[in-house]
Amino acid sequence: MLRNGGVESPSPRPRIHQTHPHDTPVFQSTVSQRNLRRFNYTILIFRLTSFCFSLSAAVFMFTINTTAASDSPRWYNFGAFRFIVAANAIVAFYSLFEIVASAWEIYRGFTLFPECSQVWFDFGHDQVFAYLLLSAGSAGTELVRQLREVATCTDNNAFCIQSDIALALGYACFLSLLISSLLSGFRVVCFIIKGSRFLL
Amino acid sequence: MLRNGGVESPSPRPRIHQTHPHDTPVFQSTVSQRNLRRFNYTILIFRLTSFCFSLSAAVFMFTINTTAASDSPRWYNFGAFRFIVAANAIVAFYSLFEIVASAWEIYRGFTLFPECSQVWFDFGHDQVFAYLLLSAGSAGTELVRQLREVATCTDNNAFCIQSDIALALGYACFLSLLISSLLSGFRVVCFIIKGSRFLL
Repeated sequence: MLRNGGVESPSPRPRIHQTHPHDTPVFQSTVSQRNLRRFNYTILIFRLTSFCFSLSAAVFMFTINTTAASDSPRWYNFGAFRFIVAANAIVAFYSLFEIVASAWEIYRGFTLFPECSQVWFDFGHDQVFAYLLLSAGSAGTELVRQLREVATCTDNNAFCIQSDIALALGYACFLSLLISSLLSGFRVVCFIIKGSRFLL
Repeated sequence: MLRNGGVESPSPRPRIHQTHPHDTPVFQSTVSQRNLRRFNYTILIFRLTSFCFSLSAAVFMFTINTTAASDSPRWYNFGAFRFIVAANAIVAFYSLFEIVASAWEIYRGFTLFPECSQVWFDFGHDQVFAYLLLSAGSAGTELVRQLREVATCTDNNAFCIQSDIALALGYACFLSLLISSLLSGFRVVCFIIKGSRFLL
């Protein structure tokens, strides 16, 4: 009998899985396996885009002052910009972990954590981090609006353009995390209904 | 046979409900009815708190300058404060509608819209408006932080205190909408599993 998150199974693509601890194992069709693989590839793509966008946003904001004069404003002087760097760095780490987990599931055929923990972990973190990124993005947008009013942007336009780009990358990452969250929400529903992550 | 959102049923508390258009009607136990009523009362309470918090936040922000001197700053001069008033007013209207829908369901025993539309409508709008409120709250918080730095708050402290209170009320409304969204998400899962909003 195969277990998710365990090391007992040497087979990379299980055909039999356990629905509930007290149920007997049921046969899993090849069509269902293929659908699950396709679904996992879709999730993996959105994890990859989240990772790229969040890493670029953090790096863009981080390297904003490398060529500027010594009297120009620094990104770490503004609370909202520090929030953006922190939020995007956290999401980049999380996305990297999720990429490993997705690739593991596609390659080995079972989840990294036990199945129940894995689906709830993914969905919960997607939701929380989507809220975190949106909050950071909104605060940053308001700060940039204020900077434009107090003439910081006319003195040092490169600073404002770079922060605009970092904000846009952060919003793109939010969108991609939102779609991941819908997909992982669907997996949770499948898990609740069937007792396994295999699709309806 | 009873239909939700229709006018065909004169009975206030149906014992029989239709699971799917092509299914035969199934018997609904009294326990399940009672659980549903308790669940609906819980949702109604969170709708009421959402309505109170969002209305207070909008009104607080709206009446911020009624007693101030003519040279003091006005809330409508700041984009983020206009965003907060708009977001909280929209959520107040939505919550009022949802209070009516919940009360209707508790009193009449069936939903205002057809059941499938109702559960998806509730969940979708809860999610979108939670994101909207969080975004408005974050932008407003950043603006208030900026105002404290440029000495607007030392000149006119009442302005900043009132906007702090409006922000706090907005965040409280966000939390209450978040819980409503979890509850309506649970209803969606029940609907997907059983083809009806009656609990698992």
